[in-house]
Amino acid sequence: MAILGIDLGGTKLAVGVFSEDGKILSKEIIPLGSRAGKDVGFLITNAISKHFKISSIESIGVSVPGISRIKTGTVWAPNIQGWEDYPLMQEIKQVAENIPVIIDSDRACYILGEHWQGAAKQINDAIFLAVGTGIGAGILINGTVLRGAHDIAGAIGWMALDRPFKNKYIGCGCFEYHASGEGITKMAREILNEQKNYSGELKNIEPAKLTSANIFSAYEKNDPVATQVLQQCIEFWGMSVANLVSLFNPEKIIFGGGVFGPAVQFIDAIKTEAAKWAQPISITQVSLVPSALGGDAGIYGAGFLALQNKNHQQSGHV
Amino acid sequence: MAILGIDLGGTKLAVGVFSEDGKILSKEIIPLGSRAGKDVGFLITNAISKHFKISSIESIGVSVPGISRIKTGTVWAPNIQGWEDYPLMQEIKQVAENIPVIIDSDRACYILGEHWQGAAKQINDAIFLAVGTGIGAGILINGTVLRGAHDIAGAIGWMALDRPFKNKYIGCGCFEYHASGEGITKMAREILNEQKNYSGELKNIEPAKLTSANIFSAYEKNDPVATQVLQQCIEFWGMSVANLVSLFNPEKIIFGGGVFGPAVQFIDAIKTEAAKWAQPISITQVSLVPSALGGDAGIYGAGFLALQNKNHQQSGHV
Repeated sequence: MAILGIDLGGTKLAVGVFSEDGKILSKEIIPLGSRAGKDVGFLITNAISKHFKISSIESIGVSVPGISRIKTGTVWAPNIQGWEDYPLMQEIKQVAENIPVIIDSDRACYILGEHWQGAAKQINDAIFLAVGTGIGAGILINGTVLRGAHDIAGAIGWMALDRPFKNKYIGCGCFEYHASGEGITKMAREILNEQKNYSGELKNIEPAKLTSANIFSAYEKNDPVATQVLQQCIEFWGMSVANLVSLFNPEKIIFGGGVFGPAVQFIDAIKTEAAKWAQPISITQVSLVPSALGGDAGIYGAGFLALQNKNHQQSGHV
Repeated sequence: MAILGIDLGGTKLAVGVFSEDGKILSKEIIPLGSRAGKDVGFLITNAISKHFKISSIESIGVSVPGISRIKTGTVWAPNIQGWEDYPLMQEIKQVAENIPVIIDSDRACYILGEHWQGAAKQINDAIFLAVGTGIGAGILINGTVLRGAHDIAGAIGWMALDRPFKNKYIGCGCFEYHASGEGITKMAREILNEQKNYSGELKNIEPAKLTSANIFSAYEKNDPVATQVLQQCIEFWGMSVANLVSLFNPEKIIFGGGVFGPAVQFIDAIKTEAAKWAQPISITQVSLVPSALGGDAGIYGAGFLALQNKNHQQSGHV
């Protein structure tokens, strides 16, 4: 008796097998490589079929990097080519037959994973701020994920924080433009472009090839550009945390995604910045912590959804 | 058989008697005058006693301009002197005896009033943006008011929108500093202070006595300072709407409070500004509308809470 939690990312597929009490029994990571469209769907159904042969799987949950359209069973995943409206539920149902399947967005899965087995255990009002290539938020209110009227709540990368509006925010949003993984490299490029006499750590990296990892590593060596970029990120992360605190009055904000990661060292500085802006009582009631599950938050959340869905269907609420 | 909905504001008490199907049977407005502390409590209990003599009241709801602490039955209302932790529930219980009483914040009441009998009828994901002296938001998620872990969610006046942080935001928050009723007069004073050659509509008003009504009236006459102030407000209102849309993906945002009012004429311009910033799909799914209940939103919301509370207690869930 086991539960399958599957996390589809922009670059890899992670498959976890869980016991019903939330212990991870096995985990496998499969790089997507150059796969697109139906080949990504096949990778998922193939992984499911394979696990059917080795375990007694009772329920399946899938986390997707985009929007899961519950009514149609299709998925919009902007970073996977050909996944504008991909019929993932239908394809999985063909291999899963009568086993319950549920598909949800990665940000919903991250906060549910942390709620089940991570930093938000026993906490009903918590937010997962996922800062990777892009930025999204999984928001738990009274134990339930905030979905909005049309399932796209939590699009925090679009948060307006720096007036006036600039055309460069089109396509990603103001917050994401400045403080996502991609934002970090954009900001560094903008600053390097202006500094003709710069001779620091980033000098020998071709601007188009800069990564956020380069910036964090240059920061460790006190590089002035990396320091300026990350100080600005701390300001944006602090303002966004302040806005979440003032609006939601949560107990915990959990930082995850590839950038947190190395940016975990800044959590105290982010709280200091947030405290300037936020509702002054609410900011004393929240704790800011790193993800306890790290890169596994998605499979845990998918596993938790699968477990809930199985129990729900067994109790007759189909 | 009637329901009492009471709305305590910073300057007046409004008392409405409702039928169970949401029709207003009578309404009374009592100015607070110079009352503070226990005298305000007495005004409320007195109004209740008076209504007991003329109607058969079955349940009482009270909207307060601050925080209702459910566990202790006390109220924090910053604009009423002596109401840091006022024992309102205890005082009302003494006159109400066995009749159910419920107390809630004004922002929760505003959105619930609109949900019951106003612009959010049959809509489960809606936000009431109340812009008066200060700014607050009543947020309805799946038909339930967002309260947060400690009952102070919706403190949107503290929203961070204009970096870097300035000390003048302390005590009210960045959004409220720029775009509340008081913010409008502050902005006008700041601009007038810099314009030595100004000879417009606001010239003969002593700066300390400026009101937002003066600014709106000068705007009608194309006064350049009033225009500049209100254009800036539209930008802030638009950014805040964008952030609500990206985070909550609501069906409706309802504008109310004293400023909307005259600022209702700017709702289209606010949507245009919001559309620049917000998650691009989510902004197409929301409609922005003025409050349908205006100054009565508070008594309607208090009446709705009273009705819910009565039904809840009758069904045995006390």
